[in-house]
Amino acid sequence: MTPKGRTEQDFISQIRKRIKDIDTDIIMGIGDDCAVLRTDQGKLELITTDTLVEAVHFDMSWHPPQLLGRKAASVNISDIAAMGGVPRFALLSVAISPSIKNDWIDLFLAGFIESLEEHNVVLIGGDTVKSVHEAMFSVSIIGEVEENRSLYRSGAKVGDQIWVSGYLGEAAAGLALCQQGVSIEDHQWHNLINAHLDPEAQVNLGRILAASGLVHAMMDISDGLATDLAHICEESKVGAEIVAENLPISENLIAAAAFCKKSSEDWALKGGEDYHLLFTCADEDGTNLCKMVKEKSNMDIFCVGRIVEGKGVVFLKDGQRNEITYQGFDHFK
Amino acid sequence: MTPKGRTEQDFISQIRKRIKDIDTDIIMGIGDDCAVLRTDQGKLELITTDTLVEAVHFDMSWHPPQLLGRKAASVNISDIAAMGGVPRFALLSVAISPSIKNDWIDLFLAGFIESLEEHNVVLIGGDTVKSVHEAMFSVSIIGEVEENRSLYRSGAKVGDQIWVSGYLGEAAAGLALCQQGVSIEDHQWHNLINAHLDPEAQVNLGRILAASGLVHAMMDISDGLATDLAHICEESKVGAEIVAENLPISENLIAAAAFCKKSSEDWALKGGEDYHLLFTCADEDGTNLCKMVKEKSNMDIFCVGRIVEGKGVVFLKDGQRNEITYQGFDHFK
Repeated sequence: MTPKGRTEQDFISQIRKRIKDIDTDIIMGIGDDCAVLRTDQGKLELITTDTLVEAVHFDMSWHPPQLLGRKAASVNISDIAAMGGVPRFALLSVAISPSIKNDWIDLFLAGFIESLEEHNVVLIGGDTVKSVHEAMFSVSIIGEVEENRSLYRSGAKVGDQIWVSGYLGEAAAGLALCQQGVSIEDHQWHNLINAHLDPEAQVNLGRILAASGLVHAMMDISDGLATDLAHICEESKVGAEIVAENLPISENLIAAAAFCKKSSEDWALKGGEDYHLLFTCADEDGTNLCKMVKEKSNMDIFCVGRIVEGKGVVFLKDGQRNEITYQGFDHFK
Repeated sequence: MTPKGRTEQDFISQIRKRIKDIDTDIIMGIGDDCAVLRTDQGKLELITTDTLVEAVHFDMSWHPPQLLGRKAASVNISDIAAMGGVPRFALLSVAISPSIKNDWIDLFLAGFIESLEEHNVVLIGGDTVKSVHEAMFSVSIIGEVEENRSLYRSGAKVGDQIWVSGYLGEAAAGLALCQQGVSIEDHQWHNLINAHLDPEAQVNLGRILAASGLVHAMMDISDGLATDLAHICEESKVGAEIVAENLPISENLIAAAAFCKKSSEDWALKGGEDYHLLFTCADEDGTNLCKMVKEKSNMDIFCVGRIVEGKGVVFLKDGQRNEITYQGFDHFK
């Protein structure tokens, strides 16, 4: 942890303490995937911003610029998906370091705009500056959601089932493989590396879940299940239990963990950047929700645990209970 | 110019070429101080983003963190002022380098929020990450303006007078003084140094000008008169002439120029970050507009030249005509 042991959570709490949310048009300020503003005709405006810093969030030596451009768009669009919304407009601030060539930035832009277009999002503004050492990309996305469909981190209820929308830890494994020098061309590891280089924002699934009326709380998994579920617990004032044997872990992940001498379970619990949706629903609605998602999107979703009284996230394995609250990617570490 | 001789203008043109502005809710995409979106009830939404990079846009050795926080807010709020709008919401992305202490960032935040509160703006979201070398602050501001009052860069007409809302070159002089080691405590140079460290966004004046119905084109001066007027010329498809003896240059600026062995005229023409408003109005309305501004805000505004046919910005002095289009601060230089 830097600096002086302050975590990202401490920093955000510090900011939240300073703010007076006096404006009645603010439905949600700091503390969810997006800020939410009241607009007209039953629609809410969603706004999110995320920054990617070279050597912290990406490594130019293995991240192809076009895929990094796509990722800069996707990780922000994912925050809109996490509210059940539709992304509409984007702003891009780029800080370009001297080592970056024109060709590189052109490919980055091509990828960024390609991803926006796949989601019908239009780039409406931005800022271009230079930096001395690291390149940095800061993206803001504006979206919208029907007033009665927006989903927050704060809606989880004791007894809820906890669901995730795909295999966990894949992006973390992809990152580890890249760090070991494995190429995306390597057929065996392509899917995992692609999960790291070019993650997909689950907008369509977010819309299905929001329209279902069955989901109580939702967010996207960017910092890992343990940390992101802890956010839901904190905002909902509940606790959570994750059951080891329920974690969706692919054969491929287990093979990669063996190859990298890492734990697939650790990747699944603490690896960030999967950008799956994490959501809760009443115990009696889980089966129906799962069936509905399969019918409408052909996607499999997985129940990984349960919302309980108390606080924090507990991992249940072999009869042991281990506290894992906020054990994942901290941007300040 | 870097990289490979590409300027910031080239880069923005390159981005604009890639975009399809297909969305009918977009009144203005890339190419003005803010993006402008259609909302409800005759209001337009304004959105702007700006990034400050350590060692490029600010120097921590002389910029007190609280004033830098204020500036990070002001320079973005200024873009809303430049459209005639009212700022309402802010997002802040911070990339914190290892050299930054908790105390420093707390003071930065205090200044940032202080400036927001002076303008009734609420911080609704953001992102906190670490960086390896430089600190970076990326701010987005959302504002609004009445549909019939928004002012664009593209509205200038041949024959218009060109006005600025205050003395020019003061921030550039303040920066030069700081670079020479002069302290803000130095009574003689306090105003100039303050213009660099803590510029003011002209929201009130922007509202008066927008409500007057007399202004044809407007923007704020962030990159210097020569460069920013060139933006108005390009978007309005006109040319401009600036008259040397009309440049508002303070006694203080002349003294500072002598002290720093620089040209006060160069500072006034090419120095950035004054954050005054730059606007045009019909020849016959100038006197009335000037009187109205004085009555409503007690501010003096200055007519510096005239919109003409053709393109580019020409500087008229001692019977000479010098082309000065885009001769000011380029973020890529």
